[in-house]
Amino acid sequence: MSRKMNLAAFLLPTGHHAAAWRHPSSVRDAGVNFPHHVELARTAERGLFDAVFIADFTSGIDEDGIEGFSRMTYASSFEPLTLISALSAVTQRIGVIGTVSTTYTVPYHLARQFLSLDQINGGRSGWNLVTTANVRESVHYGLPAHVKHADRYVRAREFAELVVKFWDSWDDGAFVRDVESGVFFDPALRRGVTHDGELFAATGQLDIPRSPQGRPVIVQAGSSEPGRQLAAETAEMVFTAQQDLQQARDFRADLHARMERIGRPTSSIKVMPGVYPLVGRTQAEAEDLKDQLDNLTHPEVGLLLLSRMTGTDLRGLPLDGPLPEPPETINGNQSRQALLLQMARRRNMTLRELYLEVSGARGHWTIWGSPTQIADQLEEWFVTGAADGFNIMPPILPRSLNDFVDLVVPELQRRGLFRTAYHGHTLREHLGLARPAPGDNT
Amino acid sequence: MSRKMNLAAFLLPTGHHAAAWRHPSSVRDAGVNFPHHVELARTAERGLFDAVFIADFTSGIDEDGIEGFSRMTYASSFEPLTLISALSAVTQRIGVIGTVSTTYTVPYHLARQFLSLDQINGGRSGWNLVTTANVRESVHYGLPAHVKHADRYVRAREFAELVVKFWDSWDDGAFVRDVESGVFFDPALRRGVTHDGELFAATGQLDIPRSPQGRPVIVQAGSSEPGRQLAAETAEMVFTAQQDLQQARDFRADLHARMERIGRPTSSIKVMPGVYPLVGRTQAEAEDLKDQLDNLTHPEVGLLLLSRMTGTDLRGLPLDGPLPEPPETINGNQSRQALLLQMARRRNMTLRELYLEVSGARGHWTIWGSPTQIADQLEEWFVTGAADGFNIMPPILPRSLNDFVDLVVPELQRRGLFRTAYHGHTLREHLGLARPAPGDNT
Repeated sequence: MSRKMNLAAFLLPTGHHAAAWRHPSSVRDAGVNFPHHVELARTAERGLFDAVFIADFTSGIDEDGIEGFSRMTYASSFEPLTLISALSAVTQRIGVIGTVSTTYTVPYHLARQFLSLDQINGGRSGWNLVTTANVRESVHYGLPAHVKHADRYVRAREFAELVVKFWDSWDDGAFVRDVESGVFFDPALRRGVTHDGELFAATGQLDIPRSPQGRPVIVQAGSSEPGRQLAAETAEMVFTAQQDLQQARDFRADLHARMERIGRPTSSIKVMPGVYPLVGRTQAEAEDLKDQLDNLTHPEVGLLLLSRMTGTDLRGLPLDGPLPEPPETINGNQSRQALLLQMARRRNMTLRELYLEVSGARGHWTIWGSPTQIADQLEEWFVTGAADGFNIMPPILPRSLNDFVDLVVPELQRRGLFRTAYHGHTLREHLGLARPAPGDNT
Repeated sequence: MSRKMNLAAFLLPTGHHAAAWRHPSSVRDAGVNFPHHVELARTAERGLFDAVFIADFTSGIDEDGIEGFSRMTYASSFEPLTLISALSAVTQRIGVIGTVSTTYTVPYHLARQFLSLDQINGGRSGWNLVTTANVRESVHYGLPAHVKHADRYVRAREFAELVVKFWDSWDDGAFVRDVESGVFFDPALRRGVTHDGELFAATGQLDIPRSPQGRPVIVQAGSSEPGRQLAAETAEMVFTAQQDLQQARDFRADLHARMERIGRPTSSIKVMPGVYPLVGRTQAEAEDLKDQLDNLTHPEVGLLLLSRMTGTDLRGLPLDGPLPEPPETINGNQSRQALLLQMARRRNMTLRELYLEVSGARGHWTIWGSPTQIADQLEEWFVTGAADGFNIMPPILPRSLNDFVDLVVPELQRRGLFRTAYHGHTLREHLGLARPAPGDNT
């Protein structure tokens, strides 16, 4: 059987375009509309996606910028873990990946919630491990300053290590439940947790057995230097923003090289760049959709998004002029910022052109066209070693997910690039990842 | 319309009796069996219960005592919040109450997960606010000593205050979603959070609007002196262990008096003692069930349970002898310990008799008999001011919940004591609690 592409559906309530909620086909109250999310998950499952992927946006509303904030939908969305728990109950096969930051939470609580979820859905869970780049997040914890970029990754590394220890609290088969003897678990198969690290210490164990897939899949999205190293050491699926085929190949090769250096098999990771696809029945239809969304984008929204992504206040600058030089040092989402400014320089973009670009894909790879054109572009990246699959970012929901499932998936299937039925039952099986033994780190 | 009783179904995976999992009618792998929990929630919904109630047991396994621990089911259960999120997706009307401790978590994260849940299920959520009494819980956080009883309540009080502030981050109607103007929320209706307390500080807001019931219902279960005061100040439903009609009346009256002193209307709280009902078609059938469960109870399990609940190691003492005197000072679950020792002295119980008693109800009110006998006892407490309703603790699941719904509920309905249909859609409506205005503390 030929190698197949992995696909995740990266869902934001109204879709990825910042102006999607103003489009006639959108669901405006999507951020509080659970049946809408059920429909999306079931559509992705009908499309045989490996997983739905739920990000974690914190709006971080500021009085300075309220004109823009009040025009964006980010201030209304479900918390990822509660949402994917609920979606688990109304889906059968598709994986569910939720984002929870390591920066302000504690390992035991997070490990427990995710392994519980993995029991609820029979081994279909993934944890998207992030560090918190949004400097406005810390205020919720009463912390005056944001944790520095490097420190966040040191914490994340040890956090992930301890979470995996908790997930492997028990050997497989520890719960014998023998009615006759009255023995519920075999004490010899309790592994327990012992951790005495730089930042965390713990003993004890989770009150949850290992799941059908052993433990949840660890997903990682950072592409900065420490982000890549963390991914090489801990991630099983990598979500990354790559604009360009060669850069994407280099990124994947770099990740594989880092894994080889520490003795991790490269087969134990799946690299899935984000893709923002504008799909039409024809190229003209796709371009028309792009124009509609551009026209609905309020300049205050575009400028605010761009200001936050570049870490530079761009309001007041001429919309049709060039971009300013980047600041010397940046804390926050570093890799994305570098990518954006590179792209703008390379393509000689104006401020308006760049904000229209980020209002949809936020720095991810944007493709548009007919189903054949979309499939051509995905195929090229897939067969040339730039990607194991893709994290699909539909512009408007539910419409764009329906279009992808109904128009693009069949084209990928015709080319033998994508499955025509689910073969496994767990997220690891969908992704083609082995079930790890307890205590196995790769 | 006459006053109606409130009923919650307090579910442990295999049921409340420690030996339930060994009974032929039990579901042995209940702790990892999500469809079993779906069946339970739907049965409770069929029985028109106000809510299902999910506690939070941490097994806290110790090598010393492993003989007992390995014979108990507590080392395998779902984490409450993930479980009730999933159950929300497969139920329509019943409330879902989950327990999360305030001792090791942080207000923002908890507030966010619960309000998200309350949007997922359309206003059917409750948070059972506890402080962590299990001294073995702290090891998961690498903390050497347990937080003292009084300190835990000080933290819980401020924790709850900040959680409510986060839940009321927005005024009702803040999200206008006006497509024409492009305004998604009205900045004037953002209340935001400002908190600068003894233990916590926070600004910002949740990215979640208020729910159909305003915000989740706060449930509280402590019955100690600081527990009662916390309940009087913050709780909307109180789960309590009461053995005796007069004590239960006194407890409820005390809570009402405390509320009156701080100007909270007593109508804003529902007092629901735990009840462990052994239901049979006849009294003999109920007694037979009790005998079956007693016979399945391993002495190591009974002794371990009792040792943990009294804070005294009772292993090695003669099973048919009296109980030792209680220690001078106890940290942990203080009110339950006092209750147990009082009961044993009052009834001249042996060690074996007491462990058999706690192996089912764990210090809660135990009743048994035919549906008529069960209804008689509930009615007496209800009409004499001892309870607004009950938190029903089925001995074996699913069997005992089915028996309660099929045999006892119809009898309560015949007497006009319980609803014959859901009239509302939110947990507050079921409980008869008013929807609070934003910022309203009562």
